[in-house]
Amino acid sequence: MSQKKRTVVLLSGGLDSATTLAIAKSEGYACYALSFDYGQRHRFELEVSEKLCQASGVEEHVTIKIDLRKIGGSALTAEIDVPKDRDEETMSTGIPITYVPARNTVFLSIALGWAEVLGAFDLFIGVNAVDYSGYPDCRPEFIEQFAKLANLATKAGVAGEQQFQVRAPLIDLTKAEIIKIGTSLGVDYGLTHSCYDPNPEGISCGHCDSCQLRQRGFEEAGLVDPIEYQT
Amino acid sequence: MSQKKRTVVLLSGGLDSATTLAIAKSEGYACYALSFDYGQRHRFELEVSEKLCQASGVEEHVTIKIDLRKIGGSALTAEIDVPKDRDEETMSTGIPITYVPARNTVFLSIALGWAEVLGAFDLFIGVNAVDYSGYPDCRPEFIEQFAKLANLATKAGVAGEQQFQVRAPLIDLTKAEIIKIGTSLGVDYGLTHSCYDPNPEGISCGHCDSCQLRQRGFEEAGLVDPIEYQT
Repeated sequence: MSQKKRTVVLLSGGLDSATTLAIAKSEGYACYALSFDYGQRHRFELEVSEKLCQASGVEEHVTIKIDLRKIGGSALTAEIDVPKDRDEETMSTGIPITYVPARNTVFLSIALGWAEVLGAFDLFIGVNAVDYSGYPDCRPEFIEQFAKLANLATKAGVAGEQQFQVRAPLIDLTKAEIIKIGTSLGVDYGLTHSCYDPNPEGISCGHCDSCQLRQRGFEEAGLVDPIEYQT
Repeated sequence: MSQKKRTVVLLSGGLDSATTLAIAKSEGYACYALSFDYGQRHRFELEVSEKLCQASGVEEHVTIKIDLRKIGGSALTAEIDVPKDRDEETMSTGIPITYVPARNTVFLSIALGWAEVLGAFDLFIGVNAVDYSGYPDCRPEFIEQFAKLANLATKAGVAGEQQFQVRAPLIDLTKAEIIKIGTSLGVDYGLTHSCYDPNPEGISCGHCDSCQLRQRGFEEAGLVDPIEYQT
């Protein structure tokens, strides 16, 4: 068993979570990666996460299946079209239909359960409040509140010897800054995946909000996005 | 579509959640029942929940599958024996091995997601801090904190037109009081199920903490427990 401090890292296979995993590793944590098969239309990200874990050397990678399609309500989990080619202004106004109700609350809850089993007190999540789609569960207020809840919700938290922390190292960074940090830590962005609506071969659409934010980020960072897009 | 105020009720098929459902119905809510197939050893409770829903007339009953065995750490989800015949003092000391890490946080999170999709703002959960096994996520502090989180975590909460509430009507009641209220509301306790370790036919063991608390509750209420126990 590793003697290093343990952490559970939420991993979607996107560039944010891949960078977050690299940051946790660079801080010396023994990383336990957690992914979710939640009925998302971009299920391709699960294979991507597995490859990222192999490349970066995590202690363990667990994928939990939860069928969030049973509750629906999002373009990512229901038969609703993913919006394409929205301009920057539209993208930054309101909460889009790709919002999945309570998604980060669900994911962090399960991460918390696993952390408690592992004796880990730090959870890493790659949320970002700058170049993002305005999801409520990506804001610092939410992250702080979840940590408070974690300390009341669990046997380990109530024992009070250590406090749970939710680490969101990307929260105040632009996409370009994230990409620069990840590049300096050796993240292979060719393995990552951001598209909400890839084709059956897993090739990114290039037009959904997530693809557009990614492309703009690489451009601003002065770096080349190594992934392929549908023409 | 029903014009009544909607609520999501967590339903395990136990006597607490069955009573909670009856209370929500008695308050005039349109009830959406949510159960979980989380790899629990007492999976029999899922059939019980379905029968309870048929008997009490809910709008919809959804069962979400999440394999919490992948994270383990509890006698309910891992290969650990369920403790039997513990005396009252032992039962009220410490948090037992039947505690499932972060379970109520996970369940409430998914309930929150569904509530948001349904336009519901009230969640009902049958937690109880009196005649219970000392689980941290059954205490009022936890319940209050979850409601705060819900209002930060969701599009509906952030919009601020209504606030999420987590209703835990049994939290301060003894098991005997719960049984009396449920009986007055017409709950058929013969359909409910409390055992952590039933036999393959679903017959309760009579010796785990949950069976003992149930039996004592009926005794104190001066009522007969209609379910069968292994001899």
